[in-house]
Amino acid sequence: MKMAEKLGYSPNAIARGLVMNRTGLIGVVVADITNPFYPEFLETLGIRLGELGRHMIVQNAVMGSEVESARLLLQQRVDGIIFTTALMHSKTVETLLKRRVPIVLSNRVGRTDCDTVQSDNGRGAAAVADHLVSLGHRRIGTIKGHLDASTTIQRSEGFQNRLAKLGFEIREGLVLTGGFSYAEAYKATTTLLERRWPPTALFCHNDLMAFAAMNAARTAGIRVPDDLSIVGFDNVRQSQWESLNLTTVDQSLEEMAYRAVNLLEERIANPDLPPRHVTLKCSLIIRGTTSITRGRSRRSTGIRSNHHRIAST
Amino acid sequence: MKMAEKLGYSPNAIARGLVMNRTGLIGVVVADITNPFYPEFLETLGIRLGELGRHMIVQNAVMGSEVESARLLLQQRVDGIIFTTALMHSKTVETLLKRRVPIVLSNRVGRTDCDTVQSDNGRGAAAVADHLVSLGHRRIGTIKGHLDASTTIQRSEGFQNRLAKLGFEIREGLVLTGGFSYAEAYKATTTLLERRWPPTALFCHNDLMAFAAMNAARTAGIRVPDDLSIVGFDNVRQSQWESLNLTTVDQSLEEMAYRAVNLLEERIANPDLPPRHVTLKCSLIIRGTTSITRGRSRRSTGIRSNHHRIAST
Repeated sequence: MKMAEKLGYSPNAIARGLVMNRTGLIGVVVADITNPFYPEFLETLGIRLGELGRHMIVQNAVMGSEVESARLLLQQRVDGIIFTTALMHSKTVETLLKRRVPIVLSNRVGRTDCDTVQSDNGRGAAAVADHLVSLGHRRIGTIKGHLDASTTIQRSEGFQNRLAKLGFEIREGLVLTGGFSYAEAYKATTTLLERRWPPTALFCHNDLMAFAAMNAARTAGIRVPDDLSIVGFDNVRQSQWESLNLTTVDQSLEEMAYRAVNLLEERIANPDLPPRHVTLKCSLIIRGTTSITRGRSRRSTGIRSNHHRIAST
Repeated sequence: MKMAEKLGYSPNAIARGLVMNRTGLIGVVVADITNPFYPEFLETLGIRLGELGRHMIVQNAVMGSEVESARLLLQQRVDGIIFTTALMHSKTVETLLKRRVPIVLSNRVGRTDCDTVQSDNGRGAAAVADHLVSLGHRRIGTIKGHLDASTTIQRSEGFQNRLAKLGFEIREGLVLTGGFSYAEAYKATTTLLERRWPPTALFCHNDLMAFAAMNAARTAGIRVPDDLSIVGFDNVRQSQWESLNLTTVDQSLEEMAYRAVNLLEERIANPDLPPRHVTLKCSLIIRGTTSITRGRSRRSTGIRSNHHRIAST
């Protein structure tokens, strides 16, 4: 300690931590900070934690390095950890729960033995299905997120179940994976648009992938929304930009941050509480990237597409 | 320690830190993680630090809360701190230097008594001036960044000096401040476009503000680039998007991250090194938001604008 002090380090937090077993620090684990959803979420988490006199330490875990992130945060003696991107079968979460470390899973959830806060992804996706079908779309594609994320599973099921209920089935050839990444979604969109009968509408599992789809469509000479309607999920700030103007599903990001922090506070104060689960409403925000089908995509040919044109007029 | 262990915390880092006076942790302070420049920079810093077996702890300092951020990082016993958004007259930096804490200022710099790495912002801005003048623009507006940031000062000076050298002067009424923020830049653009003689070209001190300008122009019924050319600074990933396609100045972000980490490593190893300063080349990336003046903006009238039209044809 003396050496630390001599070198100008403040030993207070360590000393206090050892005596009180509290540091006032909360760790937050994210997987991809260049997806604009996460900086927005982090900012809101930071504000809420600040209001409670707590401080946030961020670990940007590359997909799969959750273990290392959690280990580092524990070394720093955080009072608890908020996960924003945990995968379904995360061993890290398992281990932390066994060690009774206070944690909350937010956004991506997928288990019931700990505190969770998530959006009603299924209903959000169902609203997208309703919207696209009401606009006359029948040939609808999907670009899914990371296959091991609860959000992907919930959005897929919600979307397909609603389509089935409306009497439509999703064609397997029109469902691709974009892994929540811009580059993958760009490629997937290009592939879909090169199909003999390309989709007239595309549901992307997040906004970042929807932006990629818009850009890939532009490069392919496909007009949005005239030839192709596109819907995202998240309602990040960029989706409101006049130049993007994306139809998407709003997640109550502020509410999610607020609830995650509150759940964690309660868990720290009372480790024996039973697991609590919060599900937040989503709402469809209709903007400029969706419209009624104007018949077949310019690049498609064949009877099926003609049928669509007839159906929509 | 026993209590910590009993509760499942790993005491290794603290114990090791006390004995070796090293934790392997590097703190990074950013001011606005929702500006896409910073997540990209953080990601690159994290990768480089990871290669060296180090780990990154991020503090998102709300403008002005640098002191608190640095205090927290020191409590966590980081081996050094990389600032990405320090303001010119930062007392925090002053204090840390006095206490001989290893630090590096990156991106925003503005002092010479410590290690720094920055872009050649002046030359980057001069290239923007050359580009706009060569396209025939004479009525050129600027939306500046935060007035106390070195990047703002360097970009302003580089831009104005080059214009002066080319025989043009910047009109005060066409220079507004956007504080590097989307919302402020949006307002500033709207104000400029409502001027009796609005600019035909606009240099924004970062990409985020340039996107705001594009969107504000669209809402005002001003076509980009036909009525208004727009240039940003940073070359964030979004600027390449087909739907945005922004002319901008590339900062070598990877190189900046790499150099910042290396400077810090050397400083930690040898605290008595004299301060080193790295300046990295910028390059103008010409995309779709700049074109030759097509005469006066639709909304402008008067002799001066007519003169411009004559001058540019």
